Amino acid sequence: MSLIYLDNAATTKISQRALKAYVGASEEYYLNPSASYKAARMAKERLEEERDYIKRALNADDKSTIVFTSGATESIQSFLLPLAKEKPGEIIATRIEHAATKEMLFSLEAFGWKIKYLKTKNGSVDISSLDELIGKDTRLVLSIHTSNANGNIQDIKRLSEKVRDYDKSLKHRILIFSDMVQSFEKIDIDLKNLDIDGASFSSHKINGPKGIGALYIKRPESFIPFSKGGGQENGLRGGTENLPGIISFAEAIREHEENKREKRERAKLISRTLREGLLNLKARLLTGECSSPYITSFSYKYPSEVTMRMLYDKGFIISAGSACSNNKKGSSEETYRALGYSSEDAKRAIRLSISDDTTLEEAKAFLKALGEI
Amino acid sequence: MSLIYLDNAATTKISQRALKAYVGASEEYYLNPSASYKAARMAKERLEEERDYIKRALNADDKSTIVFTSGATESIQSFLLPLAKEKPGEIIATRIEHAATKEMLFSLEAFGWKIKYLKTKNGSVDISSLDELIGKDTRLVLSIHTSNANGNIQDIKRLSEKVRDYDKSLKHRILIFSDMVQSFEKIDIDLKNLDIDGASFSSHKINGPKGIGALYIKRPESFIPFSKGGGQENGLRGGTENLPGIISFAEAIREHEENKREKRERAKLISRTLREGLLNLKARLLTGECSSPYITSFSYKYPSEVTMRMLYDKGFIISAGSACSNNKKGSSEETYRALGYSSEDAKRAIRLSISDDTTLEEAKAFLKALGEI
Repeated sequence: MSLIYLDNAATTKISQRALKAYVGASEEYYLNPSASYKAARMAKERLEEERDYIKRALNADDKSTIVFTSGATESIQSFLLPLAKEKPGEIIATRIEHAATKEMLFSLEAFGWKIKYLKTKNGSVDISSLDELIGKDTRLVLSIHTSNANGNIQDIKRLSEKVRDYDKSLKHRILIFSDMVQSFEKIDIDLKNLDIDGASFSSHKINGPKGIGALYIKRPESFIPFSKGGGQENGLRGGTENLPGIISFAEAIREHEENKREKRERAKLISRTLREGLLNLKARLLTGECSSPYITSFSYKYPSEVTMRMLYDKGFIISAGSACSNNKKGSSEETYRALGYSSEDAKRAIRLSISDDTTLEEAKAFLKALGEI
Repeated sequence: MSLIYLDNAATTKISQRALKAYVGASEEYYLNPSASYKAARMAKERLEEERDYIKRALNADDKSTIVFTSGATESIQSFLLPLAKEKPGEIIATRIEHAATKEMLFSLEAFGWKIKYLKTKNGSVDISSLDELIGKDTRLVLSIHTSNANGNIQDIKRLSEKVRDYDKSLKHRILIFSDMVQSFEKIDIDLKNLDIDGASFSSHKINGPKGIGALYIKRPESFIPFSKGGGQENGLRGGTENLPGIISFAEAIREHEENKREKRERAKLISRTLREGLLNLKARLLTGECSSPYITSFSYKYPSEVTMRMLYDKGFIISAGSACSNNKKGSSEETYRALGYSSEDAKRAIRLSISDDTTLEEAKAFLKALGEI
């Protein structure tokens, strides 16, 4: 029996096209882009082309940069880590961040940073609660964009406008960071419009290779990395550049960009079908209106593990939340609670996450199977 | 004209076998090893098999672990970073470390750590100078194993014995770390025998994929990472595991392990030929007797860049030192100076680094070309 994979928010299979790009680049661009001889310059040029391409795909500021990392976890850590060297102040965050962010915030607390948390409302971050928290000691405001738990989209634009208003009365710019892993190539991202200072992206969530990610830095001239290692990536990230991984990542983006309107319309049709079907089955939706069509969460009759196991036996791979959370018992549940859902719902939460390869028939088959348990 | 590549210490081309393993794993093991469903458990098991294999290849302690990272730079940073959270003390290091280590040491200084440096003698670290530096505040001693500048092998065994002797008079164990990137699969490594606490390894220097490395941790139970992210790698390193990269890395190791005695004998023959030929051409060898057969450094008539360019025009890719150093002007020169060579020699230094694919004919062709300039 072949399994139907509905856990694409955990990871995706690399596309044939991205894999082919990886193999081609491994042959053609194996030289060290930081080497000084002519043959290596070709590798360096290709690296910069891919960086520029990704900047354009995100409508990033002209003066901004994309730093290639080993994945979103590193992107998040790299953005936050330099704060450990600075005079501590206050950070405003959400309680629904990815574990990579949560853990870094705990680490920063050890250096004297104070973390304040935005409220949540109806499964999303309540941006208006920023007003009660922001103050002269606020140095960074961060919020995940699309929640990896329920797919709800946080209003980063409004968050940014509020912070920028506050900036005016201060002598410094408050940094804004957003983890955009579950948004990237799923919903529109316009970094210039959002006016944020940093953002994290991952390749393996969009059918690119694993072990590659990106960190957006709006003002590279004022970003001092914790350690620059060998000085690669314009001194912003050490380590020999994984050019085959970068080229393959960029190829996965190109593939997503092609016919993206149609793909997203298809995803919306599937998510509508799933959400309506779930309501018909008396499931409680844990995903709201303003959400990614690629993620639908709900609570059902049984504890998450029971539903997961029964559906697995029927040929469906689904999850109770983020895969990372499996390394820490109860962590998914905690995130659903933080989103404002009842303990009952949190214990029974199921996350379905589709890809552009998921078909409407698979979604219908899932609903049928769920109805049978 | 096809170029003869003699800069394998900067990076190598991935082998066909490792690339095939990458492609196969991308198809077969794409699920998230941290996911809880049965299908993902296969990925998790394969991950642990590769970890165990690498431990055996290094003769690592049974209770030790290998943490998969994005490369040696991350391995080094991850081992050193937790010190930023601790009460500062003294670190004894060498002045010939890779930039990844050097830069991390500068960062730790900002947290109050004091760095003391071992002396050098005849192009290697003078281990006996440890006695003048070690004291009650010493918490970590670190030294690169095979120098990436001249291939000389530092006597880590003697260093370790000295430190362990000192441990006895102290209440705590002094940590020992060694960057073994240029040693791995080039010379014998026996971690159990060396009795060190941490070591860094890289895949792309041994014909494995880029973007993968390993950190050896002798006592994982007492190692607290700076941030554990999603809790992967037994809580020692966050980020979705790059399983195709890991499997491909392990395959590159297997390939190196096959007939390794013969391969290293061949490398020795080539290095002997190179070194004798260089002496005949009145070059000054900057590499000593106790060195990796894969790296030979020398100084010649012209400044490094001139020799490099002239040889490039004759079809040879060679370098003046580490590729990372190209991101920071004068950094290779600095390392040769730190090794004890004259400013004259440092300015004229050339590094030849071969792989198991390099032939004796290519080495002879290089000598002939050098003689002609």
